Parts: sequence; C-alpha cells; structure tokens
Amino acid sequence: MQIAIIGASGYTGVELIRLLYTHPKVTIHTLAAHSSAGQPISAIYPHLAHYKLPAMLSIEDMQWDGIELAFCCLPHATSHEVISKIPNHIKVIDLSADFRFSDIALYEQWYGTHTAKELQKEAVYGLPELYADAVKKARLIACPGCYPTSAILPLFPLLKNTLIHSENIIIDSKSGVSGAGRSAKQAMLFAEIDGGFKAYGIASHRHLPEIAFQLSKSGTKPAIEFTPHLVPMNRGILSTIYVKCAPGKTVNDLRAALEAAYKHAPFVHIVPDGHTPSTREVYGTNHCHIGIAASYNAGGAILTSVIDNLTKGSSGQAVQNMNLMYGWEETLGLEGVAVYP
Amino acid sequence: MQIAIIGASGYTGVELIRLLYTHPKVTIHTLAAHSSAGQPISAIYPHLAHYKLPAMLSIEDMQWDGIELAFCCLPHATSHEVISKIPNHIKVIDLSADFRFSDIALYEQWYGTHTAKELQKEAVYGLPELYADAVKKARLIACPGCYPTSAILPLFPLLKNTLIHSENIIIDSKSGVSGAGRSAKQAMLFAEIDGGFKAYGIASHRHLPEIAFQLSKSGTKPAIEFTPHLVPMNRGILSTIYVKCAPGKTVNDLRAALEAAYKHAPFVHIVPDGHTPSTREVYGTNHCHIGIAASYNAGGAILTSVIDNLTKGSSGQAVQNMNLMYGWEETLGLEGVAVYP
Amino acid sequence: MQIAIIGASGYTGVELIRLLYTHPKVTIHTLAAHSSAGQPISAIYPHLAHYKLPAMLSIEDMQWDGIELAFCCLPHATSHEVISKIPNHIKVIDLSADFRFSDIALYEQWYGTHTAKELQKEAVYGLPELYADAVKKARLIACPGCYPTSAILPLFPLLKNTLIHSENIIIDSKSGVSGAGRSAKQAMLFAEIDGGFKAYGIASHRHLPEIAFQLSKSGTKPAIEFTPHLVPMNRGILSTIYVKCAPGKTVNDLRAALEAAYKHAPFVHIVPDGHTPSTREVYGTNHCHIGIAASYNAGGAILTSVIDNLTKGSSGQAVQNMNLMYGWEETLGLEGVAVYP
Amino acid sequence: MQIAIIGASGYTGVELIRLLYTHPKVTIHTLAAHSSAGQPISAIYPHLAHYKLPAMLSIEDMQWDGIELAFCCLPHATSHEVISKIPNHIKVIDLSADFRFSDIALYEQWYGTHTAKELQKEAVYGLPELYADAVKKARLIACPGCYPTSAILPLFPLLKNTLIHSENIIIDSKSGVSGAGRSAKQAMLFAEIDGGFKAYGIASHRHLPEIAFQLSKSGTKPAIEFTPHLVPMNRGILSTIYVKCAPGKTVNDLRAALEAAYKHAPFVHIVPDGHTPSTREVYGTNHCHIGIAASYNAGGAILTSVIDNLTKGSSGQAVQNMNLMYGWEETLGLEGVAVYP
Repeated sequence: MQIAIIGASGYTGVELIRLLYTHPKVTIHTLAAHSSAGQPISAIYPHLAHYKLPAMLSIEDMQWDGIELAFCCLPHATSHEVISKIPNHIKVIDLSADFRFSDIALYEQWYGTHTAKELQKEAVYGLPELYADAVKKARLIACPGCYPTSAILPLFPLLKNTLIHSENIIIDSKSGVSGAGRSAKQAMLFAEIDGGFKAYGIASHRHLPEIAFQLSKSGTKPAIEFTPHLVPMNRGILSTIYVKCAPGKTVNDLRAALEAAYKHAPFVHIVPDGHTPSTREVYGTNHCHIGIAASYNAGGAILTSVIDNLTKGSSGQAVQNMNLMYGWEETLGLEGVAVYP
Repeated sequence: MQIAIIGASGYTGVELIRLLYTHPKVTIHTLAAHSSAGQPISAIYPHLAHYKLPAMLSIEDMQWDGIELAFCCLPHATSHEVISKIPNHIKVIDLSADFRFSDIALYEQWYGTHTAKELQKEAVYGLPELYADAVKKARLIACPGCYPTSAILPLFPLLKNTLIHSENIIIDSKSGVSGAGRSAKQAMLFAEIDGGFKAYGIASHRHLPEIAFQLSKSGTKPAIEFTPHLVPMNRGILSTIYVKCAPGKTVNDLRAALEAAYKHAPFVHIVPDGHTPSTREVYGTNHCHIGIAASYNAGGAILTSVIDNLTKGSSGQAVQNMNLMYGWEETLGLEGVAVYP
Repeated sequence: MQIAIIGASGYTGVELIRLLYTHPKVTIHTLAAHSSAGQPISAIYPHLAHYKLPAMLSIEDMQWDGIELAFCCLPHATSHEVISKIPNHIKVIDLSADFRFSDIALYEQWYGTHTAKELQKEAVYGLPELYADAVKKARLIACPGCYPTSAILPLFPLLKNTLIHSENIIIDSKSGVSGAGRSAKQAMLFAEIDGGFKAYGIASHRHLPEIAFQLSKSGTKPAIEFTPHLVPMNRGILSTIYVKCAPGKTVNDLRAALEAAYKHAPFVHIVPDGHTPSTREVYGTNHCHIGIAASYNAGGAILTSVIDNLTKGSSGQAVQNMNLMYGWEETLGLEGVAVYP
Repeated sequence: MQIAIIGASGYTGVELIRLLYTHPKVTIHTLAAHSSAGQPISAIYPHLAHYKLPAMLSIEDMQWDGIELAFCCLPHATSHEVISKIPNHIKVIDLSADFRFSDIALYEQWYGTHTAKELQKEAVYGLPELYADAVKKARLIACPGCYPTSAILPLFPLLKNTLIHSENIIIDSKSGVSGAGRSAKQAMLFAEIDGGFKAYGIASHRHLPEIAFQLSKSGTKPAIEFTPHLVPMNRGILSTIYVKCAPGKTVNDLRAALEAAYKHAPFVHIVPDGHTPSTREVYGTNHCHIGIAASYNAGGAILTSVIDNLTKGSSGQAVQNMNLMYGWEETLGLEGVAVYP
C-alpha cells in the first residue's frame, strides 16, 4: 500500500519515516515538505542517505494516483486547509490539533478560525485504546496531542468508572524538547536548554482544553490543572497526576480498573506496585507505562504515566491507527524494543 | 577566621570549598574526609590542584586548636554522633537532616535512633529568611534540606498569613542528580540517567515530613503531597506547587504577601507576572526565584520556585547562616553571578 | 533457532536482546547473568517487563539442549574460560577481547594469561566487511572492539592498497559512555560526566594493540597513535583519523578505494564530499558512515568514521556475524532506521 | 572605573557581565546591543533581573563621557568598523577576530575586507602569557580566539625552544556549543545536538590560520592540521595535540619547558604526569590545564589542553588583559573556583 507524508521535514515526519520504512504493509510513495521541495530527504536528514526514499515535493506538486492514505504532519491551524483539498477517496491521519475538537467553538477559542467544519464532523479522535471501533471505520483520524495521550490514558477509565473525584485533578507534565519541533528558535538552542529545567504555558497551554474536553467524554465534568515543563532531553513525556479517590474507593480499586481497562491493550502497561516508570522505558516505542501509588494523605492517589512524545505521542500512534483502519495487527511495525541505554 | 569542613569529599563539601575559598573572612584550616584521609583534595577533585588547601584528615585526627566553626557534611544519621563530640566552644553548621527536627520522635520515625537529643534542643533551623534572629545567636545550625528550601520559601508566608487553604497542597519537585551524592550507584550512572526522566520516592521521601513539620510552624496544619523527580542535569531544583486561595483571596494577594515577606531578603526574588523561572537562573548561586500564576480553574494558584540544590539548597545556605552568626554582611562570599550559559 | 546470551545483564547483553527479540529467525532461549540469577530480566531492565523472555540463570545452571548458538558478553579475561567449557557442537560469538588476537603473546601482554589457547586457533575475527568468508565457516567468532571497528573500516582498504603511509597514523577517537559498561563507578556518574569532556588511556588503551595488529594483516606495519576520549552522551563513536597519502596518491584515490571496498557492504557508507558524519546518523543502527577530506597541508587526508559502539561496535556486529554464519540475509534483524532526534 | 560592553546580548557579553559585575575595580556603565536596544538586560537574560545594570542602548546612542574602556563583543568583520569610530582616548578590548592578524592580507583572505587597517598596526594580540609587556602598554587589544588559546599555550614554548618538529602538528579540538553563539540556528537546537558528536570545518575553520600565524611568531614555520568538533555540552574546549620531539629531545624535556614557561603564569597549569585534564576542571574559570604524555611510538608526545571557551577562551582573557593594562593584579575578578559538579 502506497502512502504519503505531508510535512515530512519536521520531527513527526521523520519519525513516521522511521516507523513506516520497515512496516511490512506499506511503501512511502510521496514525501511533501514545503520549504525543502526538490531536495532528497538526506539533505535535511543525513542519516536517511542510504535508504530508498522519494525526493521531497511541494504539496501543490503532489500526485494522488496510487496513494491510499496520507499522514499529515503540518502545523496546527494550517492542516485543516490542506486536508480539505485531499481527494475524498484517500484516507487521512492528521497529527495536528485541527480535527481533535468536535466542539468547533472550543477549537476556535484556542486555535483560531477553522475552515473545514464539515470535515470535522467525520473526524475520529485517534486514541485507539478508547475508540478502536470508530477508528476502524474512519476516513479521517485526528491523532491526539502528546500531553493529552499521557494524561487521558490513566485518567479516562478512572473517571468513566467514577473511581475518582472529577474536581481538582492536577496534571504536572514534563516533556523532552523534541515536542517543540525543528524550527530554529533561540529558546530551544542546546546552550539555552542543557542543564536547566522550567515550566511553561502555565494554565494556558493548548493541550489543557484538549485534555479536559476528551476527559469530559467519560460522562463527567473534570476540572483539571495542567502544567507542562521542559526537560533537557530529546524524547519522552512523564505526567504526574494527583487525584482523589471517590468515597469508598482505594488505590487498589483504581489499579484494578486500569488493569482491566488495558488488559488487552498491547501498548498500555500498568507497572507493578512499587515501581515508578521512567521515560527511558518507552524511548522510541509506542508503549505507555502507568504507575499508581497511594498519596501520603489518606484518600488520594498519584499516577505517573510515560510515553515517547514522538511515538505513542504522535507518529507511532498514527501508525497504530493506520493498522486498525486497514484491519492489520495493531502492533505491526511497532514491535521495536526500546534502545537502551 | 579558621574553619573546618567535615565530610569534605562529597558534593556539598566541594561546594563549600568553592564558596569559602574566596570568602573574604575565612580560611579553610581543616578538611576531614574519612575514606580519603592522607590525600590532597586534588586526588579526588583535580580542579582544586592549584589552590592552597590542606590535605584531608580522618575525623579522629582533627585538631581543634584555632578552629572557630565547623561545617559538617556527613550523611544523615551519622552526623549527630560526630557533632556531639565537637568541643563546645566551636560553632557548628550541620548540612545533614540530623538536627532539623525539634520533634525527635518524628526524626526517629524517618531516620532511626538519634543519639544527641540534648544537642537537638539548641539547634536552630537555618532558613535565614524565616529565622535570622535565632540564627544570629545559635551555636548549632541545622541547614534545611534542598527540597524543603524550595518548598518552604514560597509556602510559609502564604500559610502564615492564611492566604491559602492548608489542605491539599501539592508539591511536585524536580531535581538535578547532584543531590544523590558522589557515591558510586548504578542508578546514577550517566548511561542510566541521561535522556530520561522519572519520579522516585512517591509519598515516602524523607523531605516530606521535613516540609510538613516546618510548614506547621506557620500555625497551620498543612496536608501536603510531595513527589520528587530526577532531571538529567547536574544542579537545580524546581518545585511546582498547587494551592487553593483562602476565601476572598486572589493570586494578587498571594503575590503581594510574597513580595512583602521577602522585600529585604537578598536572595529571594518574586519574578514578574508572566515570567516562569528556570533553574538556570540560579545556577551556582544562593538565590531563590519564585513565580506565581493563577490556576486555570478559579480560586487556585500555581507557584514555581527554583534554587540550586547545592548552593541555596545546602552549602550556600550554610555560608549565609555563617555570615549571620558572625554579624557579617549576609551576602558575603555569595555575590557570584550565575554562570550562563 | 534457539540462542543463549551469556552475560545478559550488561549493556551489550541488553542490546543483543533488543536486536534478537525482533529477529525473524531466532528465539532467545536462555539468559545467563551471574549476579542476577533467578530474577526476571525486568528486575534489572524494567523496559523489558512486557516482553516474553526467560528468567536469568547462573552460567552453571545453563542447559544446552536445543541451543544452537551462544553469544558471550562477559568481561575480557573471563570469557575464554567460560567459552572453553561450552559444548563443541554449539557455535559461539564472543563479544570480549579474548579471541581477537591470533598472536597469543600479544594478547597476554595486554590482558593477562589466556587459558584457551587451542580454541584461539579456530577463532575468526568477526569483521564481516573484511572476513565474511571465514565468518561463514566459523564455529567461534571474536567480535571486534568498538574503537577498532571504527578505525579498521576506514584504514584497512587504504593500507591494503598502499594508498597511504603506514607510519604516523593518528586515530583520535571519541566515545559515548555506554562503552564503560553498567557497573557502578564514581567516574561514570552522571554528575561526573555531564557537561565535560576528557581523554583517557592515552597511548595505553587496550584497543591500540588490537587496531595495530588487525591493520598489520593488510600486509603493512602501521605505526599508529590512538587516543580515546569520553563524550557526555550514551552511544556513538567518532574516530578522526589523520593519514598521509602515498606518493602520487590523492584524497580522490583514497575516496575511490573506500567506495570500491564497501560497494557491496550493506552497512558501510562513504558519505558525500563536504559532508561530515555525526554519530547521531548511526544511533542504534549497525551502520558505519565514513567521511574523507583533504588535509590543510598538501598530501594528507582526514577521515572521520562513526558507528554506534553498542551496535556496529559490538552487539549489532555480533548479529551480522550470526546472519552470515547461518547463510541468512546479512542485514536480517538489523534494518531499523536510526531513532532521530 | 567605568566600562562599556558593546554587543552585550551574546554569550561573550553575558560572560563579561558575570565577571565584571563582581570585579572590585570597575563598574558597568553602558551595555550596547543592537537588536535589544531600549530593553533591560533581564529581558534577554532573566537571571540578571535583580542586579543593578543599565538598560541596553544602540551603539549609536552610546555616550562616551566617563567611560575609560570598552569591551567589544561584536561579530567578526563588523567589529573593525565600530571600533574605528570609538574616541581615541578610550581603550578597547576586542573579542572578535578583526584585529588578530597583523598580516592584513591573511585576515582578508579568511574574513573579507578590513576597513581599519591603520588601527590594526597598534593592536596587540592579547595572550597575556606571551605578550604581557605589550598588553600593558596597549590601547587596542585583540583577544585571541578560543581554539587558538587552547592550542597556542601548549605549543608556543615547545616551538620557540625548538623542542618539537614544526611539521605535521595535529590539533584535534573539541568544543562545547556555546562557541556557536546565541543566534537561532537549526543545527544548534538541543534536539539536534544532544546525544551526538561530530567534526565540522575540517581543514577550513578560520581559527586554523590564526593558530598557524601566531605560532609562526615562535620563529618557526609550523605546518598544522586543525579539526574542530562539537561536544554536546555548553562550555569547554579540549585540544588533543600530536607532536614529534626534536632530535635528542624527550617528553620530559617538553614537560620541563612548559613548566618553566608558565612557572609564574597564574592561569596556566601543567598537570602531573599520568593525569589527563577534563574540561570540567576549568569550567567557568580563566585557567588552562595542560597534560603531556609520551606517544605510543617512540619520539612523539601527546598534549591535552583544556580551557573554558567563554572564559579563558574569550571574556575571562579579556578581563585578564584589562587587569594588566591598568596595572592591577592579573587575577583580579578571576579568582572564582570552578563550579563542580
């Protein structure tokens, strides 16, 4: 099956190339990247020099013949325009935020005008652990954000089963810097990042409404705080989540509910009691490891979840969605073991 | 004035050497380090080769003549025994946890038997921003822990002035690895730490009772959660703290209270609204920068405080205490600007 | 085909697990690791928790029934004893230095007494780009050292074809710290390594005689200098090599010879003129990228070669050797694209 | 004494602020920074928020009244124009390459047109260990480049005393990334740099002619190779230098000559035999540590020298020059001990 990657020059693009190049069912037919059009991919990613990959095209020059599926790795708020012009018979997996909000007003409040409102109606939020059935039938998938993936996976089953209070959920997240993308920014220079740690976007990051909106689908109205931080490393997100158990419920109930929810999920693992997961455990993989511990004060729990922001947090999840859409084994092309150390 | 450093071979020891070597009022007379006795300090810290420093002694071989003050950098639970044998006319600044708890039962619950209970009675908790008067008159100072320093400075004035609820205070802290010390541990190898992030000691770290106990001196009974994390960097702590404003109080009230509390504190700075402090800002310095922002949901606030764990978090604070004890300018020897980048 | 990994607890062991777990032709039947015997591999490598892997055994408890091939990841100078006791019908790929020297006297000069001298006679130096034919027929493979791999690949064809002087070859190598292994050493702590760079083992590293001995098989008697350095990163070796062209030869001749030598080598790539390879290009892969440039002064050339020390520098090369030994595609199980960024 | 810093927004500028803020003899009167004019320095360096520093000006708006000395931190090839307009009675220490070449033709070959040729004639190459007398009398100092400082200090005395061959000197240098400056470049992003190592500018870096030209002042005509590399760390340069001893000379002679040459130099230290210096030893200081070892093959030596590229490699050396120009203690303001770890 031939696929296209639109916006191949960024980090989610090159991660897709990594995962799809060895995927047994697909061939990378087209790479589109606006500013690098006409160049081989090795001009911007020298490690790809000896792989057989097409030269990059501008989006305008793309030919759709023979392509069945397009991955779209464009920036938020530009993706919806491009996708609205893709021929209807082609399936699309979008890695931007543009189709994550079935509540268009909410999207527009945080991201600006949406020009493909009709298309939004058919979009499926591509978190396979929650929405596998819809994913299988979708034409357009909106891949979840990286932070949201790390927060929704541990929280959704607990809210859904009313095992925790929906108010005062604290999500304190920490991410490697690849999430900031590849464009040249002073604040992202090695010399600025290395050896330091900071929070950013306190109470104002655009993943906050995404998390809250998605969690509300559990049938509750969660009130969340979300604080992202920047870790001097390349890949990985760890979210530390503080919750209160519902009356009569304990950490053991929460653990049991998570284990039940993800019993058959090939990529979500509840780690044993006493172990605290590190982002290193999921480096370069599509896995999410979730730890749970009792809080110091009675009645609370502290969850820690780790993912690789570029794999389960974006491109790997995109491949997982593709596998489901085409009826393939969910883990196809995603079996690689974490590079360690 | 001649001083001694006991336990000079660890990271708090070498940080004291850095700060005291250029301090205009003191001379390093004695370096004691059990396992390195007989060697020059350059044998374990080559960067000190061309400084005039005494060879290391065993504690047993120390001569107290001429020494006025001893800094004790020994591990928790061994420090109290050594200090109990120091001649009475010598002042002591202890960097361990051994004299931080006026509630001995609480100490013993977390650290084991305390063999110098009488001495505990005269110990002063060396957080100068709160206890400068007692520090000035003390013979024995218990320097605060690194995490506690980062948490108490922003929280104490808010609790004292009942501007925040005392329940459900979440302290999510992140530290560089130098806090783990210099002894060889597999988990602290570069190959294990670099490129990864994790929590540890959830709900069970020994700084939790220290923070809670010290905050209780505000006249409240705070219920805190405390989760430390390990950042792949050498120095720095950032604590992200989630609080609820007391009825009728706002983030502006909290900010005003913090600014008032530290108006004359040379090392504590409330950063401007909209700025989020990075640990890089205080690297190698004795400063604490505190940011404050409104939470997303009404009625809450999110504090971020940064210190250098080895400076304000231990050895620098020790020097600050010394300055006060001897009536010198509080900032003496601590004026250095952060190395950046 | 069932295989065993002896010495599975170190970094070359866990790298073998990563590569072999998804290798289509083999199953990991036995993991032996002295100090961790009886435990699951996840006890020491939590990222492997949800993979189907056998518990670790002591070497003494290993059962050889059904095993066809053993990878031996034990330390130098202990490997030869263990291997001498492995049943004769089992093939062995040794990752230590113990069987790399057909000149036993030279081995003993640098490593100490060798107790399996007879076995040495049948050992093949497992650098497939040079010795594929011998590898295919071998029972016992001695995998090359990591630095030697990075130095021999660019130098051997040039010496063999007498395109460069054999005297005064400078090999200035830089390695990530995973090469130092996983045992707890103070000098390898994150706090000691991060933010710094240094040389070590100047003119005395044990890879020097290995490089010189192997290069001498080109029919020349090269005089080399070799200086290893430690880079604050986990994986990767870059060797910068200074050579003088033979009379009448130019950098273009050298480039042509390298391109010809590795025309059919799936893992060795001569990068285009003007490009300087980074270790990042080969991260986690079995590739070696070689750059070549004219020196500033006439008549010289500067080669730069990069490998991943744990993959092409040890475990990946071991798998490559296995593929050849069993007549499989040389690249089987080694097709993964570098994780980037 | 009032001083000005022109080009204060870059890393050499902020390093000068760090060193001069606590210098007992000077006050920072003016900060000029083109693109940040009108802003406080804390707008671009938040860690300086609570220091008393002037707001940044454009160069055009600078007032020279009361200023005695200007440090110029502008980019190469722009500095000479700005400096040519500074009033004659003001002394100038230039950190760019613009006045390092008394051979203007050589400068123009590597940097382009020089518009202040007359001024060049009075410029002194500010390497105080070699040219202290000239520095003391200079009005205009050209601070050496960072790599050249690390190479010239170990090599000059050896060439001057004809202890080594002048041909085939290999200088293999490795630098932290702060040398690349603070402007936003994709190649300098954390995500691109961390975890990798590479060479750059092979045989073509502009510090090559500077090193060769300065070494030629020893009375020899050295033929050097120079290869810079990028280390994933912020600060520090290590140069590994391969030389051949002159007939009848040994490594001991070389060591003795270096020790003699720098016997009274407060910042240059020959480390003991057997020790290999790390860049960490000189982090944030003005020191240069030099190691020397015999090569493996007879008759050669391997030197390793470490400096902090922003301190001894630029801004610290600038302050050292200032101290000499004004007859102050050479080490004034430069006594700080390295931050470790």
